[in-house]
Order: sequence, then structure tokens, then C-alpha cells
Amino acid sequence: MSSPPRLRFRSALFAPGNQLGVLQKLPRSRPDLAILDLEDAVPDNPDAKQQARNVAMEAQTWLSVHHPEQAVYLRLNAVHSPYFVGDLAALTPTLVGVVLPKLERVAELEEAVAQFKARGLKHLQIMAGLETVAGVENAAELLQGPGKGAVTSVYFGAEDYVADLGGVRTEAGLEVLYPRSRVAMLARLAGVAAFDIVVTKLRDDDAFFQDAQLGRSLGYGGKLCIHPAQVALAHEVFSPSPEEIKRAW
Amino acid sequence: MSSPPRLRFRSALFAPGNQLGVLQKLPRSRPDLAILDLEDAVPDNPDAKQQARNVAMEAQTWLSVHHPEQAVYLRLNAVHSPYFVGDLAALTPTLVGVVLPKLERVAELEEAVAQFKARGLKHLQIMAGLETVAGVENAAELLQGPGKGAVTSVYFGAEDYVADLGGVRTEAGLEVLYPRSRVAMLARLAGVAAFDIVVTKLRDDDAFFQDAQLGRSLGYGGKLCIHPAQVALAHEVFSPSPEEIKRAW
Amino acid sequence: MSSPPRLRFRSALFAPGNQLGVLQKLPRSRPDLAILDLEDAVPDNPDAKQQARNVAMEAQTWLSVHHPEQAVYLRLNAVHSPYFVGDLAALTPTLVGVVLPKLERVAELEEAVAQFKARGLKHLQIMAGLETVAGVENAAELLQGPGKGAVTSVYFGAEDYVADLGGVRTEAGLEVLYPRSRVAMLARLAGVAAFDIVVTKLRDDDAFFQDAQLGRSLGYGGKLCIHPAQVALAHEVFSPSPEEIKRAW
Ligand SMILES: [Mg+2]
Ligand SMILES: [Mg+2]
Ligand SMILES: [Mg+2]
Repeated sequence: MSSPPRLRFRSALFAPGNQLGVLQKLPRSRPDLAILDLEDAVPDNPDAKQQARNVAMEAQTWLSVHHPEQAVYLRLNAVHSPYFVGDLAALTPTLVGVVLPKLERVAELEEAVAQFKARGLKHLQIMAGLETVAGVENAAELLQGPGKGAVTSVYFGAEDYVADLGGVRTEAGLEVLYPRSRVAMLARLAGVAAFDIVVTKLRDDDAFFQDAQLGRSLGYGGKLCIHPAQVALAHEVFSPSPEEIKRAW
Repeated sequence: MSSPPRLRFRSALFAPGNQLGVLQKLPRSRPDLAILDLEDAVPDNPDAKQQARNVAMEAQTWLSVHHPEQAVYLRLNAVHSPYFVGDLAALTPTLVGVVLPKLERVAELEEAVAQFKARGLKHLQIMAGLETVAGVENAAELLQGPGKGAVTSVYFGAEDYVADLGGVRTEAGLEVLYPRSRVAMLARLAGVAAFDIVVTKLRDDDAFFQDAQLGRSLGYGGKLCIHPAQVALAHEVFSPSPEEIKRAW
Repeated sequence: MSSPPRLRFRSALFAPGNQLGVLQKLPRSRPDLAILDLEDAVPDNPDAKQQARNVAMEAQTWLSVHHPEQAVYLRLNAVHSPYFVGDLAALTPTLVGVVLPKLERVAELEEAVAQFKARGLKHLQIMAGLETVAGVENAAELLQGPGKGAVTSVYFGAEDYVADLGGVRTEAGLEVLYPRSRVAMLARLAGVAAFDIVVTKLRDDDAFFQDAQLGRSLGYGGKLCIHPAQVALAHEVFSPSPEEIKRAW
């Protein structure tokens, strides 16, 4: 097996882990990462989760054969959820990484790392979903404390964060400016990639573009995408301009 | 004595502790909490404070007889002020809770708790006023540290905070977005109710409504009110819609 | 030698440390502080830095003779840079203070203090430049921890901060609202003066005025200035009004 391609982190496109056809189409929009989702996109009951694991395993194999160039991640359910241990069976050696949603504590991170190690999956990249009040508050410890080095990228999830907070999502987004700023800052401090919030309004390029620009200004290097059409927009915003590349040299 | 009514925390209406007539009218607008104020609303001298204590005691008795349904709090002067110990004499058994303004340190919280206990007032709910730079900076320790569990609700006070900061209050309020966000977040983490900033512009329903919406988006569950007309507006903003109640089930 | 004048901190005007003529003109706009810059304004190579040190020394002498009323600071290169030790030779006894740019760690602050002490320059005021992600994140420790008392003022540098963050500077400035708020808050907590960000758009009084107003609302007491015309504007915004002076009494 060749080493995984050197990754860029401008776009991470999600698709429901229980829909084989949709999973197989993930590479079409050429996202930097394709994420097979066992969490939010799959109904919250044991049967649905088990079925999704089976589908996601089949998709991993299919993608590795037909799209070996595509970096594939699997989003497990939260470490503290009842589904996490069962989800581990859906990890195949073709995966580049996993997403740990609603990560809140170093102990959860250590538990996940131990489980991957026990399965011979030490190479897995770990994207931490910081999308609860506790997750944001403990982000410094998760990225700099005892867990340092385990996480390779993070995302900030505004919808779940605000739901957990008991707040309200607004178009202006002032309600997440502080946590969104803080996560990007801590990611930079830890030297890990940071993915910005999902734009839930689909088929509204302007809304996506504007929000991505704000995310980029805050230090994010890419966007979580939930529709293939968002990928090209993310690449447009998050690719350095020739001018910026020149300046960096 | 029956147990205190199960409280909602959408509105907390203040009235000057030295004006009996105004205190007696507090229940008219049906605020979730009525707060008899010995602090900011009373002139800063020993005679005025002593007179207010006497009036506030009389009001507590009167309210418990004529409006037993009304939850009544007393706002004491700051624990580190010269008036705090004298204020303790104004606590009567009919109170549901106290407000500790300008709370900054765990030692102050412990001092207050000890004083209430010594007076047989262990049942008092404690609303912490976070409204100084030190208070906001130490909020995590006050709510999660050694003082954990002592505080039942908090409020963020923008006017006093900005005065302490040496800043300027503006209509847009960007100068308090960070501390206002942070207090709501830490309240959520501690599982305590959070009251949002006062709107000082009276008789301007739109201004109140807009600010309350922002407060709600940030995770606040209610508003401090300084005019009876603000109470109904607060309830309108902070009552969950039928849709939200359905979703929660 | 008389004791240094009691300082106000409304404006700190920078000039390139290698341009004698410009340095000599610094007092003309009557800035509260004049800063001879060995860092950003001087090319990043040993020869240019050495030449600037020589020019800055000459300027210090000239200013002390011709403008003894002008408080003069020297901005050294960052303590962790290869130029710092060489820069120390450019410190003359006429200086009121030094600026330590891109300060990030208590160890750096201690190193600088030790170097000043070893040269008999214990009286030097220290302005800490907080303008990297690590600098902002460690600001509480720098101002309140072991280094407490060493720093007499701080500035927040938005351009360098955002470059370090990997973000983008925008006109609205939401990308720095959190760190800008936090630095002012921590300065207040430590009781040190705080200088607000540079406005890079020159010859645009409105832009400067508006940004200075925002800075003042956030608790800053003055502005870093990079053009003499900005000094009078800073004084206009950051001088307390007669009304405010009356209130403070
Ligand atoms: Mg989610
Ligand atoms: Mg107050
Ligand atoms: Mg700089």
C-alpha cells in the first residue's frame, strides 16, 4: 500500500453513511476529504447505525478500488455515545482518518486512540469535532494538554454548539463569533488544520461564499461541506492566490 | 412553609430597595423574579443604605402576604463593599434568593454562603452578578471551581463591566460581545440560569426586543429588567415557541 | 537627570529606526510616546539592523537634547529573534522605555528584564507587543503570572496577529474582535496601559477615527500611530471629555 497522498484541507464533504450510491459519488466534486458519516446523517437507533456501518464498509472498499486518489474519513458516533464501540468494526485499512464528533474530554480522546491502536490502526488521522460548550471550553486541553499530537485537524460545528448552548443560530452569526474565533486560534497554536462551520443553506452560493470568507479571515483553512456544489466554492475561497503564494516565498 | 414555586428565569425585574410603593407594585407585571435592590438603586452612603434595608424588609413581608406567588430576591451590596454585613440584617425567611453584585472571587462567594448559613438561610438561591473585568475573568472558577454548586444563576452586567474596563458602551454592543458570550457559555457549562444585560433605553420596545433576541441567540434564558414594561417583552422573546417545545420532545 | 515626565498613553508614534531625519521629526506631532523602531520598519538582515542601531542611538541623543520633553521608546527586535542581543547595545540612558514586539512567553520577558538590569537599565518601562496567537493566548500569564509587574503597557498588533493566525484582515475587523477584546481586558486586570491596533490606511481620517472609537469602546486608552497625522486624531478620541473628568470626581 502506498503512503496516503499529501493532503490539503480546504474541503471535507460529508455523505450519509447508510446511502451507498451517495457515498460512491463523493469523489465527483473532488473534495480534499470525503467523510462517510455514521453520526448525524444516520437515525439515532441501533438498527440504523448497524446498517450504516455495513454500508460504510462496503463504500470504503469500493472507493479504495475506484477512487484510490480520494482521501476517505469515517465519522464515528461520539466516543461517549452508545454507538462508538460498535462503530469501530466499520473501520477498514483503506481509511485515511476518522472524525470524532462532539469531542469534549481528553479521556475520550485517549479512549479512541487506544481503541485504534488495539485494532492496528495507529496511522489514522483524527479530526476532532468541537461542537459543544464543553468541547470548546476544553479545546486548549484537548489540543495542547495530555492529548497533544493525537489530533490532526479540528472542525467547529455551529449548529450543534448553539443547540448545546441553548442559543439561536442567526444569519449574522454573532452568537458563534467567540467560539469560532477561539477554535481557529487554538488549532493554529497546536499546528493542526481547522475546518469551518457548515453552511446549511444549500443552493445559495453567495451565502456560502460570504461565510467562507469570514471563516478564512478567522484563520480557518477549509470548510465542512454538506453538498457537492459547496466543494468548488470552498476551494475558491481557501486556495491561496498566486499573490499570496509569491508573498510566502 | 411550602417549598418555593418552580421558577422560570425569563425576567428579573429590579426596583429600588428604598421605595416601598414601587416595591409593592413589582408583581403587577408578573416577572419571574422580583428583585429588591439595595445596591445601585440606593445612594452610596450609610444612612441611605440603612433606610433601604428597613424599607426592603417591610416590602418582603408585605409581598409574602399579598403576593405569595411572587418569587422575591434581595440584591445586597457587593461582598467586598462596606455595606454587605449590614445588609444581611435585611434578609427575611420569605426570600427565595439573593443577588450578589460585582462578584469577583471564590473567597467572596464562600464568605456570603457562610453568612447565609450562620443565619439559617441555607435555602437561599444565589444569583451572581458578573459585571467587572475580574468577575468575568474568574467566572469559570466561580462556577466550576471550589464554589461549584453555590451559584444558581448569573447575570452579565454590561454597564458596570464597561465602566470597570474603561471602555464605552455603544448601541451595537461589540465591546461586550466577548464577555457576554463567555458568561452565557460558562453558565451553560455549570448548568445555571443566565440573565442577559439590562437595556437602559426605556420606552423603546424595538431596542429591547432586538437586544433580547441577541441575548437569546447567545444562550441567555432571560433578561434583567428595569421597567415593568420590559417584562412582557422578555417573556415574549424567552418563552419557547410551541415548535421548539415539540422539537424538544 | 530629572525623573521622566508623567506619561499619558493616548498615542505612540512609530518611525523607522534607520531614518535619522524622520526620527528627529517625531516630536512635531506631539505624540505621548515616540518609538524608534528597529523591528518591522528595518529590513530583516544583519547589516540593516546594525545600521539602524547606530542611527537610533544618534537619534536618542539628538532628541534628548532638542526635545527633552518627548518620551522616547526604542522597539527592539523580538527577544526570540537573532537580533535581540545586538539591539541591546542601542539602548541609551535617555530612553524612557522599550517595546518588546511579538512577546510570547514569560521566559522571554524574564530574559529581557535580566538583560536590562545587567546594563543598569532597570528603570526602563516595558511595552509588550501582543501580536501572535501564542502572545494573546499567554497574555494572562505574561501580565499576571510570574512576570507580573514587569510590563507597564501592552499593544495588540492586528496585522501580525492575523498573519500568524493564517487569517485575513478585513475592514470590519470581526476576525480580531475576540483577541482585541481579550488583550484590553487583561491589560485592565493587570492595571497597565493598552494601545490599540494600527490603522494602516493613511490619509483617511474617518477610518482612523472610527477604528479608534471602537478601540476606545473595547477599553483601549490609546492608539499605535504610524503617521504623524494620526496623533491628533488619537488625542481627540482618547482624551476624556470634560464631562467624563467631572464624573470621575
Ligand atoms: Mg453534529
Ligand atoms: Mg451595577
Ligand atoms: Mg509587527
